[in-house]
Amino acid sequence: MITSNQNSKIKLVRALLGRSKERREAGAFVVEGVRLVEEAVKGNWKFEFALFDETLGERGKLQVEGLRLKGVEVEEVSASVMKSISETETPQGILAVLEFTNPSTSSGQGLPIPQSPNFILILDQIRDPGNLGTLLRSAAASGVQAVLIPPETTDAFAPKVLRSGMGAHFKLPIHSMSWEEICKTTAGIQVFTADMYGRPCWETDLRQPIALIVGNEAEGVSESARKLANGKISIPMSDGTESLNAGVAGSVLMFEVMRQRAVNSE
Amino acid sequence: MITSNQNSKIKLVRALLGRSKERREAGAFVVEGVRLVEEAVKGNWKFEFALFDETLGERGKLQVEGLRLKGVEVEEVSASVMKSISETETPQGILAVLEFTNPSTSSGQGLPIPQSPNFILILDQIRDPGNLGTLLRSAAASGVQAVLIPPETTDAFAPKVLRSGMGAHFKLPIHSMSWEEICKTTAGIQVFTADMYGRPCWETDLRQPIALIVGNEAEGVSESARKLANGKISIPMSDGTESLNAGVAGSVLMFEVMRQRAVNSE
Repeated sequence: MITSNQNSKIKLVRALLGRSKERREAGAFVVEGVRLVEEAVKGNWKFEFALFDETLGERGKLQVEGLRLKGVEVEEVSASVMKSISETETPQGILAVLEFTNPSTSSGQGLPIPQSPNFILILDQIRDPGNLGTLLRSAAASGVQAVLIPPETTDAFAPKVLRSGMGAHFKLPIHSMSWEEICKTTAGIQVFTADMYGRPCWETDLRQPIALIVGNEAEGVSESARKLANGKISIPMSDGTESLNAGVAGSVLMFEVMRQRAVNSE
Repeated sequence: MITSNQNSKIKLVRALLGRSKERREAGAFVVEGVRLVEEAVKGNWKFEFALFDETLGERGKLQVEGLRLKGVEVEEVSASVMKSISETETPQGILAVLEFTNPSTSSGQGLPIPQSPNFILILDQIRDPGNLGTLLRSAAASGVQAVLIPPETTDAFAPKVLRSGMGAHFKLPIHSMSWEEICKTTAGIQVFTADMYGRPCWETDLRQPIALIVGNEAEGVSESARKLANGKISIPMSDGTESLNAGVAGSVLMFEVMRQRAVNSE
């Protein structure tokens, strides 16, 4: 049992929970809690190791057995060590260090992007981790095939983003990219920005292959995003309302894409 | 200038920022920041008093002058007193105590509910203040005419709900009610719960007068909500996705109502 905060695994976990630079350099990230670990197992992600403590419940203990059967190194840590590395107020008793599964992709991150994608989401300057996680969760639910993250956006593999993503990270290709790479990846498809002065989304044909750029609340989309886009779409709103939460606005647009495609494929 | 934390106004503000019981008994609540104070002025809400400190910017100083011209009592407080009562990490330099404007409504809260409402939102067991505020903001943007808050939901006039509501509180009738009162208020109109096993929202006619009940993420809607409802609607999702953030799910449904009504009124 690991009882020291100076243990090398504990130090690694702490580093990976911290700065995105550490995650990039190690090619790894941390997930916490039975639910997220389960999603990672289901998605066949590669585990470096897992840690648990005595507070773990029945479901979690079965998970530990399952991981060991798969050959994953699982170690027990003292409750106080777990508490010292846990990101949540009530630690969930288990966490795991995972590798970004696909080092062959240009970004070295996540699942591969499909060959001819018909629905890409670009999250531009989203700085709030909770909003970013919510957008990823909605993306996984609405049929988005790849999420592209330009440099100005918060790291998608930060702990709070993983938590509010609720497993989206293990279902969805999520790739950090420069704007040049984003431009190449979206070549030949219609790129829309979410913009309050855009054309109402309900009146825009969103059945064709598209990329949707969602910006942050305070500043909207960036100059780079505007250069890349060839159209703007908006969510019509009641008089006197100026804006929506960025997580909500992006989600409403993603489900409008899904709606148009579902209704028209019947 | 108020320099003591023991000043009666400061004590009142602190109490009103705390428990909902205090707000109910005083018939008042607190708003913080230039933007929310501006929305309250625009909506003709009644001010008990306002407080500011030296950190207030130019726009805020003009606001203080405007409030004084309207006969509102405005006092300066020391920056340390402001900091001690401020709910945000960076205090915004101004806050105001407002009265619930319409004591004649049954709940003693907010703007009156229209006579024959065609779009009511019922927020059932929403406990996260950020989610509650986001739902109110989306409601104001999507044409909801009244929001009904049953007893199990977080107080809509708590500081964090006001912050994430971004002014929705001053545009929208928001009423705390028992389920009996909710039942009376929605008599004769179609009541839908948001339910993952419901009929796809795109295939349901939402142009008629409706009330929409949104529950919380973990438990869905309550027994009382299920009894009241006469239909269920869902947001279709991609395979393998189980749920959405409650703020997002409610918002997607509200904008689907708005879409159907806009498209069909052309």
